[in-house]
Amino acid sequence: MKLEKLIGDRFKEKPADCVIDSHALMVRGSYIKHVANGIFSSYTILRRITRKIEQIIREEMDAIDGQEVLFPVVLPASLWQESGRFESVGAELLRFTDRNKSQMLLGMTHEEAAVQLVREYGVSYAKYPFMIYQIQTKFRDEARPRGGLIRVREFTMKDAYSFHTSQQDLDEYYKKAHRAYEKIFERAGLGQTVSVASDSGMMGGSVSHEFMLLCPIGEDSIVICNSCDYRANLEAAECIAENENRIALAELKKVKTPGQKTIEDVCNYLGLPAENSCKAVVYQKNKDDKYVVAFTRGDLDISETKLRNILKEEFHPAVITAESGLTAGYIGPYNLKGAEFYLDNSLKGINNICCGANEEEYHYTGLNMERDLTDAKYFDISKAQSGGICPVCGKKELAVSRGIEVGNIFQLGTKYTKSMNMQFADENGQLNYPIMGCYGIGVGRLAASVCEARHDDYGPIWPMAIAPWQVHLCCMRADDAQVKAAADEMYEKLLSSGTEVIYDDRLVSAGVMFSDADLLGVPVRVIFSPRNMKEGLCEIVTRDKTVSKKVKTDEAYDAVRALVAELLQR
Amino acid sequence: MKLEKLIGDRFKEKPADCVIDSHALMVRGSYIKHVANGIFSSYTILRRITRKIEQIIREEMDAIDGQEVLFPVVLPASLWQESGRFESVGAELLRFTDRNKSQMLLGMTHEEAAVQLVREYGVSYAKYPFMIYQIQTKFRDEARPRGGLIRVREFTMKDAYSFHTSQQDLDEYYKKAHRAYEKIFERAGLGQTVSVASDSGMMGGSVSHEFMLLCPIGEDSIVICNSCDYRANLEAAECIAENENRIALAELKKVKTPGQKTIEDVCNYLGLPAENSCKAVVYQKNKDDKYVVAFTRGDLDISETKLRNILKEEFHPAVITAESGLTAGYIGPYNLKGAEFYLDNSLKGINNICCGANEEEYHYTGLNMERDLTDAKYFDISKAQSGGICPVCGKKELAVSRGIEVGNIFQLGTKYTKSMNMQFADENGQLNYPIMGCYGIGVGRLAASVCEARHDDYGPIWPMAIAPWQVHLCCMRADDAQVKAAADEMYEKLLSSGTEVIYDDRLVSAGVMFSDADLLGVPVRVIFSPRNMKEGLCEIVTRDKTVSKKVKTDEAYDAVRALVAELLQR
Repeated sequence: MKLEKLIGDRFKEKPADCVIDSHALMVRGSYIKHVANGIFSSYTILRRITRKIEQIIREEMDAIDGQEVLFPVVLPASLWQESGRFESVGAELLRFTDRNKSQMLLGMTHEEAAVQLVREYGVSYAKYPFMIYQIQTKFRDEARPRGGLIRVREFTMKDAYSFHTSQQDLDEYYKKAHRAYEKIFERAGLGQTVSVASDSGMMGGSVSHEFMLLCPIGEDSIVICNSCDYRANLEAAECIAENENRIALAELKKVKTPGQKTIEDVCNYLGLPAENSCKAVVYQKNKDDKYVVAFTRGDLDISETKLRNILKEEFHPAVITAESGLTAGYIGPYNLKGAEFYLDNSLKGINNICCGANEEEYHYTGLNMERDLTDAKYFDISKAQSGGICPVCGKKELAVSRGIEVGNIFQLGTKYTKSMNMQFADENGQLNYPIMGCYGIGVGRLAASVCEARHDDYGPIWPMAIAPWQVHLCCMRADDAQVKAAADEMYEKLLSSGTEVIYDDRLVSAGVMFSDADLLGVPVRVIFSPRNMKEGLCEIVTRDKTVSKKVKTDEAYDAVRALVAELLQR
Repeated sequence: MKLEKLIGDRFKEKPADCVIDSHALMVRGSYIKHVANGIFSSYTILRRITRKIEQIIREEMDAIDGQEVLFPVVLPASLWQESGRFESVGAELLRFTDRNKSQMLLGMTHEEAAVQLVREYGVSYAKYPFMIYQIQTKFRDEARPRGGLIRVREFTMKDAYSFHTSQQDLDEYYKKAHRAYEKIFERAGLGQTVSVASDSGMMGGSVSHEFMLLCPIGEDSIVICNSCDYRANLEAAECIAENENRIALAELKKVKTPGQKTIEDVCNYLGLPAENSCKAVVYQKNKDDKYVVAFTRGDLDISETKLRNILKEEFHPAVITAESGLTAGYIGPYNLKGAEFYLDNSLKGINNICCGANEEEYHYTGLNMERDLTDAKYFDISKAQSGGICPVCGKKELAVSRGIEVGNIFQLGTKYTKSMNMQFADENGQLNYPIMGCYGIGVGRLAASVCEARHDDYGPIWPMAIAPWQVHLCCMRADDAQVKAAADEMYEKLLSSGTEVIYDDRLVSAGVMFSDADLLGVPVRVIFSPRNMKEGLCEIVTRDKTVSKKVKTDEAYDAVRALVAELLQR
């Protein structure tokens, strides 16, 4: 098509409200239009990209025997009541009533709808395994949408659900799906994506992986071992601490610590290193506001995800009132009243630390966990740290990086089939619950991630497989009849060969023409200009600058076609 | 793919709750799964069909310079407040509040979103005309969903919006869009679809057309002239009455008509034909419950759509109370108090009719409209009727048929651009409001309509262009090694040639195999069986029974490919 007909303006200025590059470039190039908080329309350019991404995903899902279906966006609450998630999921699940006062919701994930679709079909083991998927709009009422298409409220997602008669069968399929995901990211130009073990959160199940594009602007923290191939989301990474004190045993002693409320202050005041102290973090349960205190070593931090998995319920940071019985700033595990508490593994066996005395202006020193807190239980509720111990190879080689989650796969187990009573008869006529897996990719976030990973100051550098067009044809000085005729001919030839070409024959300066082309990010650029025309040449350059050459105009068509074909293979 | 792997069961029995054939067949063949009132999931088969329909639509929209975009399903109320539709549209617009207490809605049409997307882009006449479209999920909270996919609450729709600098330009584009729609329906196998003038309803604008599949189960009534090519939706068709009495002038006289409350009763009682009487229909305005009486000739019916277009506000059937001042069953235009009233054109100049006397148990006879109701105004508020006068050719050749609306196109005028303040500068720098057109097709309803139009008792007869597969390969007696080997070879050859083939190699009876194939409705069927194998033959039949032949097995592949190619051309 002609660039002058492309809907959407292009801007040089970085919008003030854009904190990440992909967001800024997608606004500057009219890929997206803000409609409401976390809700965008897609312009032509982005829709061309997302359709290609959708097609790549579709092909790879079909290749692992997926069957494309379509679930509703609007679901009856009754379906989610069957699984129990109507109550258990928080405000990100958008609930409403329809005109008949029926409770409804906007699907943010479709496990329930998937089970409902195949519950009657999957009654015999002979039908298994099978996988269904859809590419459909989802809505998740995020509290804090951010980063353009990175975290939105409405998004297009491919979600897939597989059903199996045994854990072994799921394990095998899960591996296939893992490989399919790698292929999808490779084809979309994100071959550098890594998979990390993740927390299953509200999805249920145990084994799960996130596919992460390592990237400084990522929202997720990923723990990577520099020595072995261990990788996990920070929320899921096991935290292993060396449980040794480097100071001698001492008696439990109450000491006055006026105004010393933080770990840093107390340790400074008492002349102790942070790892010889005990940190308290206080929460309240959502359902009844009861207090929960999490204790860990002073040099570590509490992982709320891990604590939530132990409590199996939602909680929020506490407001400590006078009536609570808790003494803010002076809370310790010894003689604590008014709250249930959880101790991190890092405290186990530690024999001389300081902690709050549960009394205004007092701490204890010399706390010996084994001696002073008999029968205490310990949990893994701290975050792993850079320089920490790898749970696989045991070396102190952990590093924490940032990443964007571009996909995830979960082993769901029987959480949904059990709660929704989907059963199959096995070879012996015995009834069993199918075991499920689920597999998600956000289409828009993937597009934005490719842009994050592949751009320069002037625009995205789209890989050929998902580029909005394959060739960007520039006719400089379209008022020069000879140049215009040559460019027009190239345009017609490329069009009739099925090449996707965007043709800029506007009478604008080279500066405008090239900065627009940079914002579109089309991989191959072909430039006709008066100067080259005099020598019978035209220019072929790639957006990533790896190719820049002049070719004879009568050889240009073949050269462009060959270059497009080559880049499609990458 | 193998039929035994196709997700979804198939049933012989017609489901009790299905009143139309396409619904019953789509349930019996596992095309759709009921999720909630008017909300369905699509199984694999239907998704394959709708994807092909979507692609046909996309190609024809691109061919008239459409650019595919994507609007959100969830929209902020503020957008619809700009156009005024947040207030004016009824309960079918699903409104809700998000977690931040912002008012939101589910898009049932996207004029506002379209204007918002291009409002800044379209500031100069040089950018015009342009058209944007999307294929996206919509939600309309219908009071009475029915007929499977014919009337649902959630549906996938292609909606397109064009922008123009002049009415003439819109007129030209509108014709192009009309032609594109004809092509879409032809390609999808509904070449018999007709376009009819329609009422623009809540969309605004004046000129509009609906594309109707004439069909006894249709929800719409269509007026068609048997003499000329006049066609209109009953709601929009002009009603022309012959305004002559066949009886002599008479004096206005009050007569006692005890218990005679209906037109039929009164006319029987007085010995008058219905066309010599005046019918009253009473409504109340939604906003203030004030009464509105519509009068027409006794042999005609009031069109609420026409009345609404005159009142320009919503109303509902009246509850006539004692305080209203109205005398139910005895309401007439002469000396009527307590309500505003509207007279149909059919009453104009009529000089001797009976009507209610606005007094319990009394009617008037001899009402002469000109003499007795001076200064009365008349409106077209009656429905056209079979045998009525064609407003184009003037012949009494109107017929009323039923139809399913499979698409619609509207000239919207400046309703949205004005209210949302979208302007462009013309050649002289003068600011103007762009003129819009909009163009909709429901994908699922189109699939169901094709099924309605093309099926037999055993299943749908899909046209090749949108069939879920092109070839249905049957291997009867898959336990016969020779038959199985031949069928397997055909399957592999068809697959590798890119032919879409569903392969039934189950060990089931011919009855089950063929009734399943009928429900799938695939156009070309290839059957390998022991009996034919002995003669070196296989069978090729079409679902519509126009082809049924035996061919040599070594010629079968070419014959099948040729037949598929031929049917793709139709």
